Amino acid sequence: MRISELSLATGVPVATIKFYMRECLLPAGDPVTSTLADYGHAHVQRLRLVRALIDVGGLSVAATAEVVRALDKQGVAMHDVLGAAHHALSRPVPRETNLTGNELAEARHTVDTLIAARGWAVNPSAPARQRLARAIATLRRLDLAADPDTLGHYADAADGLAAYEVATVPEAPREAAALHVVLGTVLYEPVLTALRLLAHEAASARRFAALGKD
Amino acid sequence: MRISELSLATGVPVATIKFYMRECLLPAGDPVTSTLADYGHAHVQRLRLVRALIDVGGLSVAATAEVVRALDKQGVAMHDVLGAAHHALSRPVPRETNLTGNELAEARHTVDTLIAARGWAVNPSAPARQRLARAIATLRRLDLAADPDTLGHYADAADGLAAYEVATVPEAPREAAALHVVLGTVLYEPVLTALRLLAHEAASARRFAALGKD
Repeated sequence: MRISELSLATGVPVATIKFYMRECLLPAGDPVTSTLADYGHAHVQRLRLVRALIDVGGLSVAATAEVVRALDKQGVAMHDVLGAAHHALSRPVPRETNLTGNELAEARHTVDTLIAARGWAVNPSAPARQRLARAIATLRRLDLAADPDTLGHYADAADGLAAYEVATVPEAPREAAALHVVLGTVLYEPVLTALRLLAHEAASARRFAALGKD
Repeated sequence: MRISELSLATGVPVATIKFYMRECLLPAGDPVTSTLADYGHAHVQRLRLVRALIDVGGLSVAATAEVVRALDKQGVAMHDVLGAAHHALSRPVPRETNLTGNELAEARHTVDTLIAARGWAVNPSAPARQRLARAIATLRRLDLAADPDTLGHYADAADGLAAYEVATVPEAPREAAALHVVLGTVLYEPVLTALRLLAHEAASARRFAALGKD
């Protein structure tokens, strides 16, 4: 199909498609003449992936390019494609936190202990370790519970979901499995956080609404 | 204490403290002379809350001001303070989504059905409803599962966590309870999402790492 048809099929403007090709998010089409190229179903699929990562995952163009690169690289294990998705999903580190090195080191120790206690095989440089440590240090600074017992409730919920999610990844073909892993990692996160807010509101109604204006 | 001491106690620069006061995130100090004001423990607590919402919750200054306003308003029920925190937590709507009105309406129907089936009392205009519908419509567009059974796994996890979280809110005093609700809503979200990624990596290692490079 022509680029205008690709645009119609995906709802992505032609100018945006050209921008994605320049940024290596999308391969070029097969040249037909010096000014015309042909695009296929793979382009439609890739465009949908890119839009999902940017729109729903909230990834930057650079982070999306990183995930796409890992996907396209031959010989990269599925487990490493997942790593690229995780890295991309990690929000930028806040500009200033006021947390001391000591507070962060203690929280990091809590994270490492939790991971070891659960027997989780996790890369020592996984960005989620640092993100969790930062959240824990902030909770403690504000006198909110971040002891192993409290964290265990969240880890149990995460463990159950992750086991379910990874079990649903298709066996083959590799491209489909990788796509599923990347998309699932990014796209089920808002499902989980939105449902938590809805369940939270319902639980709050059960406990507080009867009290009216206190 | 003086503003310079408030800055030392919290690690927040004096210029930032003055900015927060102009933006109504922090009440003014008690005037001592025409150029000096006195700040107390309440200012230290409030500054920590504001920094946590901005740094960890990722809230904008405007969203933070909304939460602070709900907290300070007399006669506002705890349940409504929670509502303000939820509203603030909802990320901005993506600029462009390519989802059709029909896709969104179907997803919204799924959300409403799920909430009704669980007997959750949730405001019809809760932003999390729309956020969840958008995530579901995107999953379906990409041929990823978003059927009631799949969503049920996430809803179960959210339900368990929310019940636990709301149960740990202190009975009184009201200010402490409100603070706990707002902070907990914002600050345990990164704990949950980071733990999901860590558990995900561990589950992926169990399933895929043995396969090596496929």
